[in-house]
Amino acid sequence: MASWTSEVRSFLESHRVGRLATVGRDGTPHVVPVCYALDDAALYVIADAKPKRGPANRLARLQNLRRTPRAALVVDDYDEDWRQLRWAMVRGPVDFVDDPPAHAVALALLRARYPQYRAMPLDDPDAHPLFRLVPERVLVWSAA
Amino acid sequence: MASWTSEVRSFLESHRVGRLATVGRDGTPHVVPVCYALDDAALYVIADAKPKRGPANRLARLQNLRRTPRAALVVDDYDEDWRQLRWAMVRGPVDFVDDPPAHAVALALLRARYPQYRAMPLDDPDAHPLFRLVPERVLVWSAA
Repeated sequence: MASWTSEVRSFLESHRVGRLATVGRDGTPHVVPVCYALDDAALYVIADAKPKRGPANRLARLQNLRRTPRAALVVDDYDEDWRQLRWAMVRGPVDFVDDPPAHAVALALLRARYPQYRAMPLDDPDAHPLFRLVPERVLVWSAA
Repeated sequence: MASWTSEVRSFLESHRVGRLATVGRDGTPHVVPVCYALDDAALYVIADAKPKRGPANRLARLQNLRRTPRAALVVDDYDEDWRQLRWAMVRGPVDFVDDPPAHAVALALLRARYPQYRAMPLDDPDAHPLFRLVPERVLVWSAA
């Protein structure tokens, strides 16, 4: 089940950071930069070991997704020549990849894309929850 | 009523693009890159004249905000040296600046920051709605 057009997939794969939007407890949105990797069917994000205020598995974005398992992620190019502006937004349901073998497979995708992740101990699904965003809707925009 | 710390204000003012999260009709978040300007009390975004699928005043982000007038905006630095990562997220209530004199003042802030806006006819509040995000909560994160 391929869910990406080749145009969207190559746009997402050629960028290094996306911004992930979730919905907070009080209905206010929440948005943070995240690293991500793709396979044919979805996009994967892990609660990694960058410095946090608390444990990775207590991050607000995760609590939001457990309550409201839907997210949006945008990847974009900014340029002062606004004819060069482009973005792609992915929206859809989120589910946590708790099963250890599946967590390991998705973590391998992330480590293939980000060498920084290879030095981090991220293998414990409880300590480092990993979730999948399924691209139910993908919107691509360019100024050109 | 100053709502920004000088640290947050200078971080936001030294960046050119933020990513604005809203909540869609079905509860799924929505997130797009936006240009913004600040005054002491709030952050301003306009439905501008960049190419759109339809009229600027029918943008999904605006329909979302009319239904759920709360938003989040994140501004960040990405770097392959993850010790350099930083972001600031602003969350709070949104209201539309419909009053023509107030719309003109906020548009002037945007035009001061973005020369690109000076060439666009954006003065009609109905055609180019402009909204204010009040920083009820601001979260700053840095890896360092």
